[in-house]
Amino acid sequence: MENSLIIESTKNPRVKTVNKLRKSKHRTELKQTVVEGFREIRRAFESGWPFLELYCCPELYLAVDEDLLVEKIRGAGIPVFQCSEAAFRKMSYRDTPDGLMALSPLVGKKLNELNLPENPLILIAEDLEKPGNLGTILRTADATGVDAVIACDHKTDLNNPNVIRASIGTIFFMPVAEATTAETFAWLDQHGIQSLAAVPDADEEYTAVDMRRGTAIVVGAEDEGLTDQWISGADRRVSIPMLGKNDSLNVSTAAAILLYEAVRQRRNSL
Amino acid sequence: MENSLIIESTKNPRVKTVNKLRKSKHRTELKQTVVEGFREIRRAFESGWPFLELYCCPELYLAVDEDLLVEKIRGAGIPVFQCSEAAFRKMSYRDTPDGLMALSPLVGKKLNELNLPENPLILIAEDLEKPGNLGTILRTADATGVDAVIACDHKTDLNNPNVIRASIGTIFFMPVAEATTAETFAWLDQHGIQSLAAVPDADEEYTAVDMRRGTAIVVGAEDEGLTDQWISGADRRVSIPMLGKNDSLNVSTAAAILLYEAVRQRRNSL
Repeated sequence: MENSLIIESTKNPRVKTVNKLRKSKHRTELKQTVVEGFREIRRAFESGWPFLELYCCPELYLAVDEDLLVEKIRGAGIPVFQCSEAAFRKMSYRDTPDGLMALSPLVGKKLNELNLPENPLILIAEDLEKPGNLGTILRTADATGVDAVIACDHKTDLNNPNVIRASIGTIFFMPVAEATTAETFAWLDQHGIQSLAAVPDADEEYTAVDMRRGTAIVVGAEDEGLTDQWISGADRRVSIPMLGKNDSLNVSTAAAILLYEAVRQRRNSL
Repeated sequence: MENSLIIESTKNPRVKTVNKLRKSKHRTELKQTVVEGFREIRRAFESGWPFLELYCCPELYLAVDEDLLVEKIRGAGIPVFQCSEAAFRKMSYRDTPDGLMALSPLVGKKLNELNLPENPLILIAEDLEKPGNLGTILRTADATGVDAVIACDHKTDLNNPNVIRASIGTIFFMPVAEATTAETFAWLDQHGIQSLAAVPDADEEYTAVDMRRGTAIVVGAEDEGLTDQWISGADRRVSIPMLGKNDSLNVSTAAAILLYEAVRQRRNSL
């Protein structure tokens, strides 16, 4: 019985599956992704994330609390596979794996599965391709108490293992959804949420807008900014003052400035 | 004459020098660094940066405006070396080099070389090791009209080619200085500048502090935060509200939130 939960060979079919999941196409097809790393897996598991399988390699542990975590996960009825170092390294997405990896269902709800409080604060990300930026935005969304992060259109891939990593696992306890732009506009309208598109040359500065009512901040691709659909379709376009020689900020920086202004307004109004 | 400005072999001494400059130790010893990339070099050159030598490889150009830029640089009396593709690739710090690289004096003034306006806004970075974070902070410092960025202690290496890259060349037109913590405290005192240390668990929120007077925002290492020297030595400790489950923000995100609050206060007070 225990023997069946060992992955010795680099040719084991599970090694192959994990490697296939590096590609977005296969993640969509298999409806699965991979979560790697002690910190990420612990955070997800502790927030009740329903992992499908756990792969571990004690030779690679950093000796934090891996054994305890693995026992808890096994205790929750999730199959735990012990891997040879060679097999684990073959599966790993990292240069220096820490001996823990998990197979996971995809992250991301439908819009109608989101629970919204009164006057929600929403972050909409369109076409963000750099996993580091999206991950940092997820951390900031958590810190600002954002009620949902919506990834619009397929380039913003919540299930990219590097996004999960850059978010340090935040993605597992944030309400995140995936939707098309048309669906998102309809949903915002239905809930009476104003949309504020971050546009570098907009006339209105972000500090001039009342963000205490239901508000969605919309940020776009790293190089190109938002598409015309969002620029013209949003309720308002807001700019962040640029006092120097550059004409743009890092997109995760821009998102943080806008979200924390919403927090400032909402706390000051209490 | 023209022939002497050709680098054909990967064993050319200039190739060796450029590669040595990957290491901080050699940059300090030779008092030189390397700037790579069309965008970075153009920005630096246009803001009057005194490059020492230019290396180009037309086979690798992305066909933007490289020839024009190279002619301008040559016209300014800077030696231009044409490199074989093999030699250039050997020198390059990038996976996909764009055919332009320059030898540069080190970036970073002494504190007493900085020119300060009334009520300056300063950003102090202590022990930032990730080039991407420091580069993003430099872009934000430019955008918020910061009067000086001070790198405290040696881990924050302004001359790391990856910092230059992440700043998209902003570093060449920002007033940046390097100093020890002791020197920085003395300098702040001398100029009557209040120091605000970003500390996650500080009692005072950043929005409660008047930043319209001369103010230095102080941010610390990615993992560890600020050292005790700064936490206890700063005039005030300020926190950014964390409304979610995480207990920290990315350091460049934190710097942006604090700097834009200073901008908001200063613009609203006009």
